[in-house]
Amino acid sequence: MGEAKQATSNQAQIRELIESWISSVRAKDVHGAILPYRSDVVAFDLVDPLLYVGSDAIRKRLTEWFASFDGPIGIEFRDLEITAGEDVAFCHGLHRVNGTKTDGVKLNMWWRTTLCLSRIDGKWAITHSHDSVPFNMENGMASLDLEP
Amino acid sequence: MGEAKQATSNQAQIRELIESWISSVRAKDVHGAILPYRSDVVAFDLVDPLLYVGSDAIRKRLTEWFASFDGPIGIEFRDLEITAGEDVAFCHGLHRVNGTKTDGVKLNMWWRTTLCLSRIDGKWAITHSHDSVPFNMENGMASLDLEP
Repeated sequence: MGEAKQATSNQAQIRELIESWISSVRAKDVHGAILPYRSDVVAFDLVDPLLYVGSDAIRKRLTEWFASFDGPIGIEFRDLEITAGEDVAFCHGLHRVNGTKTDGVKLNMWWRTTLCLSRIDGKWAITHSHDSVPFNMENGMASLDLEP
Repeated sequence: MGEAKQATSNQAQIRELIESWISSVRAKDVHGAILPYRSDVVAFDLVDPLLYVGSDAIRKRLTEWFASFDGPIGIEFRDLEITAGEDVAFCHGLHRVNGTKTDGVKLNMWWRTTLCLSRIDGKWAITHSHDSVPFNMENGMASLDLEP
């Protein structure tokens, strides 16, 4: 396969991996949502602590997060840009998530996502993820109501 | 050059780029600190808004940030892990920054950093950066006092 063709194929594989992840989140399917992560993933998540290490930590976090919704989770991944080399890739974009939390609070927020991937034995896996909102310098609050 | 050797060389080049960036921040040298960024960089920064696009936006942000310190900026990049392919790379780690702000407040904080790079015409450049702190789900405050 030519280099350009291989890059397109890698991009397509990563897009598929992300679409599958999104579908799993919508279905609150922890098993499906954990599949793309490598076992030694280092994740910088939206909420404390500073970092999560390992797919077991991600599994626990996803399980709690899915359980915090009463009913379905709405999720979109906007402005997704994928840069794929032969065995190393990254992508970034904005997640929009909405739904009703178990305490009745309606959630409708945007956050920033960066995913870093490696291809091992021909298969792409997420080895690092970074999700966040920025904060407001005036009052030190996390900015949960920003829109792109 | 063999594949393994090329990967090491790319890792070394990226480490050098980051060390040069750190030196520029310590020297409050905006010109030096902006050099590693590609002109169309997409940056997710610590503070509002959701994203900054382009190296001119980074230049403005760095200029303001450097000016907000009275005296030197102390900065370290801890737990830096670099994954480098032939033309695509990423790295992540924790920044520790300290110093005295112009309003007299002593700053001493940790944050998470992800840098994504592409090699164009043989030269590595940052095409995407993501800096953040997580937030505390109980009170919605950005977590500015976490330690690894």
